[in-house]
Amino acid sequence: MHKLVLIRHGESTWNLENRFTGWTDVDLTETGVEQAKQAGRLLKAEGYEFDVAYTSVLKRATRTLWHTLDELDRTWLPVVHSWRLNERHYGGLQGLNKAETAKKYGDAQVLVWRRSYDTPPPPLAADDPRSERGDIRYAKLAADQIPLTECLKDTVARVLPFWNESMAPAIRSGRRIVVAAHGNSIRALVKYLDGISDSDIVGLNIPNGIPLVYELDEELRPLRSYYLGDAEAAAKAAAAVASQGKA
Amino acid sequence: MHKLVLIRHGESTWNLENRFTGWTDVDLTETGVEQAKQAGRLLKAEGYEFDVAYTSVLKRATRTLWHTLDELDRTWLPVVHSWRLNERHYGGLQGLNKAETAKKYGDAQVLVWRRSYDTPPPPLAADDPRSERGDIRYAKLAADQIPLTECLKDTVARVLPFWNESMAPAIRSGRRIVVAAHGNSIRALVKYLDGISDSDIVGLNIPNGIPLVYELDEELRPLRSYYLGDAEAAAKAAAAVASQGKA
Repeated sequence: MHKLVLIRHGESTWNLENRFTGWTDVDLTETGVEQAKQAGRLLKAEGYEFDVAYTSVLKRATRTLWHTLDELDRTWLPVVHSWRLNERHYGGLQGLNKAETAKKYGDAQVLVWRRSYDTPPPPLAADDPRSERGDIRYAKLAADQIPLTECLKDTVARVLPFWNESMAPAIRSGRRIVVAAHGNSIRALVKYLDGISDSDIVGLNIPNGIPLVYELDEELRPLRSYYLGDAEAAAKAAAAVASQGKA
Repeated sequence: MHKLVLIRHGESTWNLENRFTGWTDVDLTETGVEQAKQAGRLLKAEGYEFDVAYTSVLKRATRTLWHTLDELDRTWLPVVHSWRLNERHYGGLQGLNKAETAKKYGDAQVLVWRRSYDTPPPPLAADDPRSERGDIRYAKLAADQIPLTECLKDTVARVLPFWNESMAPAIRSGRRIVVAAHGNSIRALVKYLDGISDSDIVGLNIPNGIPLVYELDEELRPLRSYYLGDAEAAAKAAAAVASQGKA
């Protein structure tokens, strides 16, 4: 039996400001730092050990991982960064306030952009100053690999190759892995692992900073999954995520 | 022309307490954190870019690297950890106060233990609670790879394979590398790069948290080397290191 631990980064400055973030590289708030440390303390209290850690190339996930590893006294673990674990790209919504966007376009439209499986938000222009196409960390990618917007289906499509080529082989070879990533890159993994339908995934929310444990069989099929710590707190935190997009 | 940047970790709690540290995994002091950030700010001000970072498996070096990368806004850079970049193992002196040890054994003996090229301090017993042989981070090493004491010659012998097999090929392939490591693992590299004799290396000290830049030709022979920032401050900091072992 294999265990896989997924952690959504702690609260970011734009979570706090209720803005669409996507690939914008904002940092954690003080609360977010505390959530990350708490994730590490929970894992330590339960005796978790890891052989390798995965994260995105965005600092809110990397810093969440660093704080988690620090609490575990495992700052020496190898860390693999991949842009494929980045948050869903939010296109032209990046930087906009979620509630104001909902007021302007209506809750229904924003819910479609936030949660529809296959309808992306309006794209950024390639020369929009918010575009990541000039960002040095993506310099080795082909221009068309750097999205101008994404729906969750697009996110799934770029997360899964990384799962299949890096994470799943590592797990199969017996390595215990912890992943610090984002609401939608984790939803992409959960959708795949649990075989959640395109329509049911709309209602699934991932709380910040609470380790989500998957127990997997030899074929990496989930036996069960659960949040560490207080189940009620996890449910409440997930509900808070769901309500962010409402006017 | 290639550039290589070496950074000795910022001040650690045992630097401050003037204790022999070696492989003991102590953390940075507040001053050490500030030194690490300052190293990052210096590199940023000079426009340094890196493709990959190297560090030891000890947290004072890892955390120095993290703060440096943070100041550079490069938290997404790949990081390679290797035990081969660890500080020299200080054997039975690990944990002892440097000045008290000098009082007990004399300045001359302590200088031999600190700086002789080929005389190691008395070894730890393999079952000494200070030994790292039960430490999970070294679990994949053969027992005889985990030292019970080291002289600088021993440190050179285990640093150079990592230089030859990992760092040098990376530099030759055009990758710009930054290394956050320790006084003696950096002395080992400097001795090799500059062809310093076994006797002359005794007088060479590496200050904490000041980036040491090597400009290397295609054969990785040094063209020149220098500390970033205030040269006088670097010299003063190196002199402070040299005086630590005196009664």
